[in-house]
Amino acid sequence: MVNLSKEVTKFAEKVLDETTKYDGHIIRAVEQTVLLPDGRQTKRDVVYHADAIAILALTKDNKMILEKQWRAPVKQVTLEIPAGKIDKRDQNPLDAVNRELNEETRLAAKKVAPITGFYTSIGFADEYMTLYLATDLSPVVAELPQDDDEQIDLIYVDYEQATELFNSGQLKDAKTNMAYLYWRTLQ
Amino acid sequence: MVNLSKEVTKFAEKVLDETTKYDGHIIRAVEQTVLLPDGRQTKRDVVYHADAIAILALTKDNKMILEKQWRAPVKQVTLEIPAGKIDKRDQNPLDAVNRELNEETRLAAKKVAPITGFYTSIGFADEYMTLYLATDLSPVVAELPQDDDEQIDLIYVDYEQATELFNSGQLKDAKTNMAYLYWRTLQ
Repeated sequence: MVNLSKEVTKFAEKVLDETTKYDGHIIRAVEQTVLLPDGRQTKRDVVYHADAIAILALTKDNKMILEKQWRAPVKQVTLEIPAGKIDKRDQNPLDAVNRELNEETRLAAKKVAPITGFYTSIGFADEYMTLYLATDLSPVVAELPQDDDEQIDLIYVDYEQATELFNSGQLKDAKTNMAYLYWRTLQ
Repeated sequence: MVNLSKEVTKFAEKVLDETTKYDGHIIRAVEQTVLLPDGRQTKRDVVYHADAIAILALTKDNKMILEKQWRAPVKQVTLEIPAGKIDKRDQNPLDAVNRELNEETRLAAKKVAPITGFYTSIGFADEYMTLYLATDLSPVVAELPQDDDEQIDLIYVDYEQATELFNSGQLKDAKTNMAYLYWRTLQ
């Protein structure tokens, strides 16, 4: 029905120049000069960031695991599902899922299945995130060390509580709200 | 059940210094030095970006409107729901919804309702997006000028086609995949 690869010629921009403006701790921000399909030139900002995973983790008594933590970009405490960057230690995204579950929830999942993958802020960033459903959870045998600049508290909410949090605007994180909506489709 | 504002003291980081590293066209990237609750210091990257709106626009024959366009950060043609930044012209987010619908789809919505709001990449950016449901659509009376560096083609997909695109991984944009999952909850 839709073949996007055939249409690259019509839409593609050619990068004429790319200059790194900030090579930071978790991002690299660049300014591109691009040639538009109609022959004009324009500037694009692009932020490069590692790919990531996020986890709708449902306990055996059917509760969703949420983390309370401080988020510097928005200067507030948020409620989010477990998530983390895919890094060099990971042979594949599932390694990151299992590691983050261990580090952040001290649980291991017997069943892990992808729900959907997506670019988080496609207008300016390349971060690609895959959202997983993790079930059949039990305590880990060996605890991995936690990130020492992350302070996280866990809460466990059933579907009715999650719905209340969603409806009242207390869930305000893209991956978390997407996970909640996916959970709603299972009800 | 959850009172996040009470817990700010436990989690809050204090920004000791913030240095702009790149003041670009649509982003500003900064490096922060922050004081953690336990007294240690660390560095944070933060990308500031305008807030935004996105629209699950359902036509009278119950089709979802998708846009094909080139996205520089991911170097590919994508399928996305209509969206755009909230800018200085807008007195409120609904002004941005109506403008983007006009510019990108040439339609006006009699009914617009918020579905959910969320930070798109809360780990490194402050972009807050509100997703709206727009229905009772009809052609606009007066067409607004289009962004001259945006090349967009529209497609209209029914629920079964959208499901096929979602399941096959051809929808890979956070706001679009969230809109699809919300639509699924209405089936």
